[in-house]
Amino acid sequence: MGMPLELNTMIVTKGREERIEENLFVLRKEGYRLYPLGIPLEVKKTIEGDTSGTAVIKKVEWADEATVLTYQLLSLNTTN
Amino acid sequence: MGMPLELNTMIVTKGREERIEENLFVLRKEGYRLYPLGIPLEVKKTIEGDTSGTAVIKKVEWADEATVLTYQLLSLNTTN
Amino acid sequence: MGMPLELNTMIVTKGREERIEENLFVLRKEGYRLYPLGIPLEVKKTIEGDTSGTAVIKKVEWADEATVLTYQLLSLNTTN
Amino acid sequence: MGMPLELNTMIVTKGREERIEENLFVLRKEGYRLYPLGIPLEVKKTIEGDTSGTAVIKKVEWADEATVLTYQLLSLNTTN
Repeated sequence: MGMPLELNTMIVTKGREERIEENLFVLRKEGYRLYPLGIPLEVKKTIEGDTSGTAVIKKVEWADEATVLTYQLLSLNTTN
Repeated sequence: MGMPLELNTMIVTKGREERIEENLFVLRKEGYRLYPLGIPLEVKKTIEGDTSGTAVIKKVEWADEATVLTYQLLSLNTTN
Repeated sequence: MGMPLELNTMIVTKGREERIEENLFVLRKEGYRLYPLGIPLEVKKTIEGDTSGTAVIKKVEWADEATVLTYQLLSLNTTN
Repeated sequence: MGMPLELNTMIVTKGREERIEENLFVLRKEGYRLYPLGIPLEVKKTIEGDTSGTAVIKKVEWADEATVLTYQLLSLNTTN
């Protein structure tokens, strides 16, 4: 028995985030995932990709074998 | 830095739970607390008290330095 | 990415524990498992089986995709 | 009740690490701290300071209200 979870130290969006406000995004991930709240984390589109920005997680919801994150984007890496 | 959290193995209500449906309750606790979902846990009114029943947590929400649990009561200990 | 771990609320020995002292046992489990230290937990031989006793975990070691627990048996359920 | 722990996403040494081999270090931190193993993490001397390198945690031990990390330094930031 026991509850499987995954410890995460960055946000990997796979482009599935939804903007709900100016800098606020919601992202649903499969499984129960443990992320630190209130700590600046790297945001990436893919695990292998470059960091696309920095965000702070404001809310984590666990239900139905999924994790829903609400995060605030603090900065965006722009490459020209 | 780091995010403080507390690993919990039972639900201690302190009588603050709110019934939202037949056997479904919501309980708000201070701080970020890690509970297993989907696993039967003891429910107690106080830490020192007797077990008042068994429940399964269906949802955990972390935000604003608090944890909100939604749990389903499976059985109730009755004492006559 | 992320680190898979399993949240556990009881000790399931599958009879693989090794006694290292009077009431002190060591148990190796596959994978990284999160157990509460310093809190009385049920000890079972199998998940489905009856509780065989109560123990407190004194030490948890994570390395090489395995978890090594050192626990102190507090009480033993005896059935006559 | 419950077990207090702290979720950490980087290694802050405060200069207290001990080298045990070429690139292998041991660091003792107060309290129970949850770190991801096998994932490259930033190493800093102080929380506010610059990143001094990157490391992977190979072992975590929890006992006596303390956490002992064994980590392998992967790269060192040098500034001349």
